[in-house]
Amino acid sequence: MPTNLTFQIVLALPFEEAVQKATAALQKEGFGVLTEIDVKHTLKEKLDVDIEPHLILGACNPPLAHKAISSSPLASLLLPCNVTVRQIEEGSLVSIIDPQTLLSIGELGENPEIGEVAGEAAERLKRVIKALGS
Amino acid sequence: MPTNLTFQIVLALPFEEAVQKATAALQKEGFGVLTEIDVKHTLKEKLDVDIEPHLILGACNPPLAHKAISSSPLASLLLPCNVTVRQIEEGSLVSIIDPQTLLSIGELGENPEIGEVAGEAAERLKRVIKALGS
Repeated sequence: MPTNLTFQIVLALPFEEAVQKATAALQKEGFGVLTEIDVKHTLKEKLDVDIEPHLILGACNPPLAHKAISSSPLASLLLPCNVTVRQIEEGSLVSIIDPQTLLSIGELGENPEIGEVAGEAAERLKRVIKALGS
Repeated sequence: MPTNLTFQIVLALPFEEAVQKATAALQKEGFGVLTEIDVKHTLKEKLDVDIEPHLILGACNPPLAHKAISSSPLASLLLPCNVTVRQIEEGSLVSIIDPQTLLSIGELGENPEIGEVAGEAAERLKRVIKALGS
């Protein structure tokens, strides 16, 4: 079973610009952002703690999501694909969950159709990271 | 490594009522719903395909999320905790991802603090399922 958790890249960009660049790069590979959690804002509001800017984007490629859910409705327990952006000293860190690791847990790991979807998603998301670095 | 993917229960309730009941039961265990993806609506809009009512709720317990992210910022790649509700023949199926399985992938599986958070989240989410069944 694959154990690589994430594809990631450090961008020498301010946080907001990194978020915009990541969103545009995801779009080019067919991933729309369906959800957005502002982790910094949520933790401030709920717990009154302060952290650096940190966002969780829920990215979804509809044809791949449909294929996964059609093969096993349980796949939606692991969708959408999380892309996080965090402000760090060097700029902004963009991390994308590796869908091949994510979609191999539990009984999903034994489903070859889910494996195919995860493989295609991984190829696309690796291209997102490559595009962000160029 | 644990391989249980989900805790689930079938409710003899219409879809909308099941969603309300699940949301209330999550709230009682300290999980707010931060995101909501209407899978049926999204697939209809993006691909013009029809599926049964199917919702992905992103549930978050702020103190547990904060503890996980403080221990490893990578944990946000696996947050929030997905709770899905699907209309099925017998009523509505509520499924919750098992956080102990989810948070054991990649290097997170080697972090004892993450393991503790996942264990507490699992206990709470099992109580959600129990409450839904009573």
